[in-house]
Amino acid sequence: MDLINNRILGIDPGLETTGVSIIDISNSSSYEIIFCDCIITSKNKKIPQRLSEIYVGINEVIKKYRPFCLAIEELFFAANVKTAMNVGQARGTALLAAFLNKMEIYEYTPLEVKQAIVGYGRASKEQIKYMIKVILKIKEDNFISKKDDAWDSLAIAVCHANSSSFYKKTKKSF
Amino acid sequence: MDLINNRILGIDPGLETTGVSIIDISNSSSYEIIFCDCIITSKNKKIPQRLSEIYVGINEVIKKYRPFCLAIEELFFAANVKTAMNVGQARGTALLAAFLNKMEIYEYTPLEVKQAIVGYGRASKEQIKYMIKVILKIKEDNFISKKDDAWDSLAIAVCHANSSSFYKKTKKSF
Repeated sequence: MDLINNRILGIDPGLETTGVSIIDISNSSSYEIIFCDCIITSKNKKIPQRLSEIYVGINEVIKKYRPFCLAIEELFFAANVKTAMNVGQARGTALLAAFLNKMEIYEYTPLEVKQAIVGYGRASKEQIKYMIKVILKIKEDNFISKKDDAWDSLAIAVCHANSSSFYKKTKKSF
Repeated sequence: MDLINNRILGIDPGLETTGVSIIDISNSSSYEIIFCDCIITSKNKKIPQRLSEIYVGINEVIKKYRPFCLAIEELFFAANVKTAMNVGQARGTALLAAFLNKMEIYEYTPLEVKQAIVGYGRASKEQIKYMIKVILKIKEDNFISKKDDAWDSLAIAVCHANSSSFYKKTKKSF
């Protein structure tokens, strides 16, 4: 599978909702949304089934759009150990899908994402959303129904786009 | 792939060391070790690479021995959120490998494992090891070099063997 080398996959992993976005970088200041949606798994299903839905869903997006890299948040925070375990299981699934498809993988802390997009590490969710709309020229109507996880996956993709375009040396790669 | 329906895969997942065991139940009181080892990944490698090694390693064992089910610990405890996230990533990888191979998946708490093997929820690691040796007729010499994670994967497999043989109603299935 030939990967498209100006195309970034952004993922915000979660057992219940995984945000998945694809953006293209046409040049250093112009990005285009190719795909943005969530993989949602039912609480009524058992965990292996849910992980499999996340894995298969991400794989479908990768096979269809062939992004060359994955940008994903580096997580150290969770409400508790059980939440951390569940996010970990979903995150591992995303990393595995990307790695087995020979993609490059980059991770950023929430602070880095906020700094890359708003220029301020303590920016609010609304400030991030506002800047994402400006950067990606999003018409509100098409995106108003998107869940936070979808926005977060756009944010991490844009963070990587900004970082790899402008700050090659500071980007972190697995 | 036809799975062998008296054969159990026990896994003790971890990012650094994943214990992997296969046991056969010939009848309700006689078990045989078919495989017991650890998948060890290097701290120097990046996490997606390590998860892939765990995934590929477990898949190889499944393809070779074709166990019909996976027994794995249900984890709520970890030293901290970062550890929980890493165990979660490794555990998700194991669940995914089993689920995608159409295996049944059963989980037990550490308390249930101890009760199933020693009959006492607060049994020590040494007591568990002693009973595992008795139950599986292990000659010390062959197993003295095995890591704790390998023993733990034997313990969870034996726990499921005991539970599914004698306590069908109490076993929990995903």
